[in-house]
Amino acid sequence: MAHIRLINPNTTASMTASIYRAANDYAATGTQVSACQPEAGPVSIESHFDEAISAVGVAQEVIKGEQEGNIDAYVVACFGDPGLLAARELTRAPVVGIAEAAFHMATLISTRFSIVTTLGRTGIIAEHLLEQYGFRQHCRRIRAAEIPVLDLEHHPEAAYRRIVQECCRARDEDGIGAIVLGCGGMANLTQEISREVGLPIVEGVSAGLKLAESLIGLGLFTSKHGDLAYPRPKPFTGQFADFSNLTLPPGG
Amino acid sequence: MAHIRLINPNTTASMTASIYRAANDYAATGTQVSACQPEAGPVSIESHFDEAISAVGVAQEVIKGEQEGNIDAYVVACFGDPGLLAARELTRAPVVGIAEAAFHMATLISTRFSIVTTLGRTGIIAEHLLEQYGFRQHCRRIRAAEIPVLDLEHHPEAAYRRIVQECCRARDEDGIGAIVLGCGGMANLTQEISREVGLPIVEGVSAGLKLAESLIGLGLFTSKHGDLAYPRPKPFTGQFADFSNLTLPPGG
Amino acid sequence: MAHIRLINPNTTASMTASIYRAANDYAATGTQVSACQPEAGPVSIESHFDEAISAVGVAQEVIKGEQEGNIDAYVVACFGDPGLLAARELTRAPVVGIAEAAFHMATLISTRFSIVTTLGRTGIIAEHLLEQYGFRQHCRRIRAAEIPVLDLEHHPEAAYRRIVQECCRARDEDGIGAIVLGCGGMANLTQEISREVGLPIVEGVSAGLKLAESLIGLGLFTSKHGDLAYPRPKPFTGQFADFSNLTLPPGG
Amino acid sequence: MAHIRLINPNTTASMTASIYRAANDYAATGTQVSACQPEAGPVSIESHFDEAISAVGVAQEVIKGEQEGNIDAYVVACFGDPGLLAARELTRAPVVGIAEAAFHMATLISTRFSIVTTLGRTGIIAEHLLEQYGFRQHCRRIRAAEIPVLDLEHHPEAAYRRIVQECCRARDEDGIGAIVLGCGGMANLTQEISREVGLPIVEGVSAGLKLAESLIGLGLFTSKHGDLAYPRPKPFTGQFADFSNLTLPPGG
Amino acid sequence: MAHIRLINPNTTASMTASIYRAANDYAATGTQVSACQPEAGPVSIESHFDEAISAVGVAQEVIKGEQEGNIDAYVVACFGDPGLLAARELTRAPVVGIAEAAFHMATLISTRFSIVTTLGRTGIIAEHLLEQYGFRQHCRRIRAAEIPVLDLEHHPEAAYRRIVQECCRARDEDGIGAIVLGCGGMANLTQEISREVGLPIVEGVSAGLKLAESLIGLGLFTSKHGDLAYPRPKPFTGQFADFSNLTLPPGG
Amino acid sequence: MAHIRLINPNTTASMTASIYRAANDYAATGTQVSACQPEAGPVSIESHFDEAISAVGVAQEVIKGEQEGNIDAYVVACFGDPGLLAARELTRAPVVGIAEAAFHMATLISTRFSIVTTLGRTGIIAEHLLEQYGFRQHCRRIRAAEIPVLDLEHHPEAAYRRIVQECCRARDEDGIGAIVLGCGGMANLTQEISREVGLPIVEGVSAGLKLAESLIGLGLFTSKHGDLAYPRPKPFTGQFADFSNLTLPPGG
Repeated sequence: MAHIRLINPNTTASMTASIYRAANDYAATGTQVSACQPEAGPVSIESHFDEAISAVGVAQEVIKGEQEGNIDAYVVACFGDPGLLAARELTRAPVVGIAEAAFHMATLISTRFSIVTTLGRTGIIAEHLLEQYGFRQHCRRIRAAEIPVLDLEHHPEAAYRRIVQECCRARDEDGIGAIVLGCGGMANLTQEISREVGLPIVEGVSAGLKLAESLIGLGLFTSKHGDLAYPRPKPFTGQFADFSNLTLPPGG
Repeated sequence: MAHIRLINPNTTASMTASIYRAANDYAATGTQVSACQPEAGPVSIESHFDEAISAVGVAQEVIKGEQEGNIDAYVVACFGDPGLLAARELTRAPVVGIAEAAFHMATLISTRFSIVTTLGRTGIIAEHLLEQYGFRQHCRRIRAAEIPVLDLEHHPEAAYRRIVQECCRARDEDGIGAIVLGCGGMANLTQEISREVGLPIVEGVSAGLKLAESLIGLGLFTSKHGDLAYPRPKPFTGQFADFSNLTLPPGG
Repeated sequence: MAHIRLINPNTTASMTASIYRAANDYAATGTQVSACQPEAGPVSIESHFDEAISAVGVAQEVIKGEQEGNIDAYVVACFGDPGLLAARELTRAPVVGIAEAAFHMATLISTRFSIVTTLGRTGIIAEHLLEQYGFRQHCRRIRAAEIPVLDLEHHPEAAYRRIVQECCRARDEDGIGAIVLGCGGMANLTQEISREVGLPIVEGVSAGLKLAESLIGLGLFTSKHGDLAYPRPKPFTGQFADFSNLTLPPGG
Repeated sequence: MAHIRLINPNTTASMTASIYRAANDYAATGTQVSACQPEAGPVSIESHFDEAISAVGVAQEVIKGEQEGNIDAYVVACFGDPGLLAARELTRAPVVGIAEAAFHMATLISTRFSIVTTLGRTGIIAEHLLEQYGFRQHCRRIRAAEIPVLDLEHHPEAAYRRIVQECCRARDEDGIGAIVLGCGGMANLTQEISREVGLPIVEGVSAGLKLAESLIGLGLFTSKHGDLAYPRPKPFTGQFADFSNLTLPPGG
Repeated sequence: MAHIRLINPNTTASMTASIYRAANDYAATGTQVSACQPEAGPVSIESHFDEAISAVGVAQEVIKGEQEGNIDAYVVACFGDPGLLAARELTRAPVVGIAEAAFHMATLISTRFSIVTTLGRTGIIAEHLLEQYGFRQHCRRIRAAEIPVLDLEHHPEAAYRRIVQECCRARDEDGIGAIVLGCGGMANLTQEISREVGLPIVEGVSAGLKLAESLIGLGLFTSKHGDLAYPRPKPFTGQFADFSNLTLPPGG
Repeated sequence: MAHIRLINPNTTASMTASIYRAANDYAATGTQVSACQPEAGPVSIESHFDEAISAVGVAQEVIKGEQEGNIDAYVVACFGDPGLLAARELTRAPVVGIAEAAFHMATLISTRFSIVTTLGRTGIIAEHLLEQYGFRQHCRRIRAAEIPVLDLEHHPEAAYRRIVQECCRARDEDGIGAIVLGCGGMANLTQEISREVGLPIVEGVSAGLKLAESLIGLGLFTSKHGDLAYPRPKPFTGQFADFSNLTLPPGG
């Protein structure tokens, strides 16, 4: 039995639930999925600032998971992969970001893809990730539906129509074979969009879950040799004092 | 029940068997693994020429698989990923190469990796793949144990020692967190090497199997929109006449 | 007297003849041109699959040429450069692909160029070659006339008009100085297109011939030091058994 | 009178003082320098995790600065540039990171440089920044003195000798013209190292101060058009509730 | 007192005066600005040829400056940065090009920028510089107002309108945060354009001045270790005989 | 009859003669070779400064050639390709640089090459050219024999030994298939070095001649559409007044 913990980096519980369902539908026999969200942080992530704050919550949730002691892998379920490398330092368990997961999967079924995301201003976050992960040349275009993240919850119909509209444009204009959905909040829409657009639609939450299962199945763990080794224990001050002299559990 | 077909692109049956075992050990509940090799081609793949010939066999095995009609994904089990894009054109099922699979997995558990392969002359094949897939900056160095591929079968002890030796050098000198094994024939050595070297060792056959399972689980298929669409049917002549006017099965 | 062998990787004899004429018109005094096509393979090359099969024929034609013993250089006359590195392994004689030849020449007379090819789906092949050869930044755009390759033979008037139309768009919209024709079948149209479009038009068959002449003239041969050394002799099975234990002629 | 606020992202006050002195020595007539550190966070930054936590402090210090209302530019004084893009979103004032500042300056006085940093494990942070900022080809090598950051305070002599030793190796082996010091804690050593090594030594705190002065002098502000616009106001929960519905001052 | 010498690489004195004013407005207390132009060369720089000739004048002006002996830094005030590396070889003083200066500054206040230049044909010069300096990915688009350089002097109103027009298009279509003005002759228009367009406008002459001030303030000099060392003295013939056996002043 | 003009960018007549012989040995039947050197400039080119001055001479020699009216192509015979793009603007005839020529040829016969040049300080010039031309990934290493250019004339034996020594190191350590000689003055040594080192040695003067012949044979000319169009005529002052209002001959 493998236990995969989804970390929703924002603090909107309903989005956590929706991400959980989206992932759980894809869980293999023998995979237990659980989901959590930080105790503190932004209700949605739509800027570098939101992302920076949310990274603390991601780290805290990994530390909690390590204390629970029975988590086999983590998925960071926000398309900017906030705190991903920090999270990897905190555990031997594999940690997968949903942006990277979606990019990896998209390159396995197409030669070029486009991204359809929520707000145009977050496009730069995706660009930086594409560069860091090596997929810049595989992504033809980043398109924004220009809807705030929480509209996916509050105005689902209108949001859905805008996303499908941009996906159809990507299909017709970008010379691509697949589309990556650029927001964890779109996870539950994948199949419906795919049917309507007629292209493979890659969504990161489910992709991240399957990559996490894969890494567990392969017996691979986050390398503790070199730059992802556990952080050197040290004092932290103020509201972050709990991070002081972190002793990560042996199983971690 | 998902059926994944491993295609060993060379014609050495014992290597097919070894690859089968290496993959089957990692198969999830509900995954049926089968393995095959081309009817015609080189007994090992150690050059661009060997690779070019083996690509025909890979294509033939995909066509056969499509005619069988019950294959859900293919894994091309040679580290040069021969015929990968051709194979993808021939089927809607996902097709995963073991080099790409290993690269993807290695980037999820480390920030930089090295490759340990058989012969130095095949390093250029890996370099070209790293460039095409986007992982050039993630790979610090390609190292060769300078052993012919079939020595992995004929002189397993000596071959094993040489590979471990290069892996240790990579660990100590390259500033990496993981090592990718650069030959399908090394698949059964992964765990032993990992124990001895003390780093995560990523091997492509098992990695390819898990990625194939993931794509099946996600309901993703090779995009038939754009440049991976089925090949236009047309006449082929001579020994390749069987490829003429290929009508791929509806399920394909 | 230098003997250059053109290898048309597809099996359409009329296209071989047309390529021969296109090249022969440009041959220097002292250059003998001959042309051949594989005994087996696709009648045209419009996909990764077609290309993979054609690479075998290319290799076979090089082996034949080496057995003839009087070939000084080879030109692989299909825009995807199928089997190019395999061919280079099989001979000390220089081997030039027409895509690479055209790219090289275009960069000598302009700072940026566009490609006009037949079908959009082959654009990815050109993109991968541009990346591998280093010319990605020199190519502004890959344009497709969306005509099947054999239409160049069957509907030459209509095909010609479509190609000119795309060339004019490239000239007016792409900010380029030259155009590369992306199909060996366009070889005989070069001068006419150039006159009509008013830009230098670079065509690969003639460019490949001149580069082959240049390499012969320079006394340069394909390096046998390192990764283009002759393939290690080994058994091949089935319909490829003739490749077994290849002993390439001393002059090869 | 221009007011530049140095933000030391770690919470070690003595390091803040040292950074302040290092910068103040270089301040132009008419520049007022002040320095601060977060109320909460790690005492030194030596990992992705430390960096992620420190980014919150950086953001908080910018928000405080904006509330003070008289800050003309900020310098983020840790070599990983933690929270840089988040900080830029929070203010119209220019914000400069010391890694980027050092890289920019180094390219103006040399064609290639090396970095000498504290711990090897932080090299990957510098590598990612070089890639994001565009300086990967300008940096020949990242070298680590393998000293913890606080040893710069606790064992200054030994630390200094190790740094000079690596700088000399860089000078002699790397084919470079300048060296970038990869830690804010080295700021006060710059001139001494430069004298001993005989190469231009670029240090980020002073470089960042001068770039901040330059941007102020030019009347340039952080663009609020597009992806660095103020974050959309929204609720934050828990210990981050203070960030809720942030209304940044008009002057901000 | 720091003395910064602006070198206008073209020979139009009125443009030198205009560049001088543009820079002097931004000079810090304690900075003395002087400006010069070559005795010989083109009246404006609009081609590789113009640029090649102007590089001689730039070198001559640096040599003159070194003989004067009191110059602390140089700014090469033409957007192609002609002769920049040659100039750096001739002096220990920092030398800053206005294209590089503008690029550096633009990346500090935005994540992506566009360039608005005079003639389309000079775009390739900017492209080559972006590649060499590392900023290719930061520049979304190079736009030309298609006005000859001297029209900035002869038809200022019309030229200004065309530039503003292109800047507005860049703002609305390119997904950028800042605009770089691609011609030294536009220096005096910066503030007016910025007001009208509503984006940060980065102009190289003022940016170069501030970077020069910064380097002086930091005590940084052009590295004489390695490839920017003083040129080896040697004979020059003909009209360039004056460059023979150049002995650069000790202070140089 | 095709007339190719070699331009030796330095003013050492004996080197012009040596370059002439090196090229003439490779001239095809029907090719007339002539060689010239600027009337003014450095006696050798070993720095950015030397190169900048020599670019004027290159331009002047092209203008002279155009006035002669019977030149079909030019070769710029210094490894830094000084003034290459300026030269291309001045004529419709093809202009080939010897660095680019050598790089192009080397990639046709090997997958990776190294450069052996004279002085280490000129390595950066080669690096910048590799980047601009697209061959950065094809060049494994730039090695310097650390001999001044004119030592090739004055101490030929010692220079030859040093070059062979570096070539052997490149062969044994760099993982390459070919070596590019990085100085026009080495042109006459090519065959001897190749025999001694046992690798294909690519030399730019002969390579440039053959590429020039190829372009002539193909009827290709330097594009006058876009950024290599003739320079706009304009006044030049001082010693460069002769360049004023350049009217290039109709044949040009």
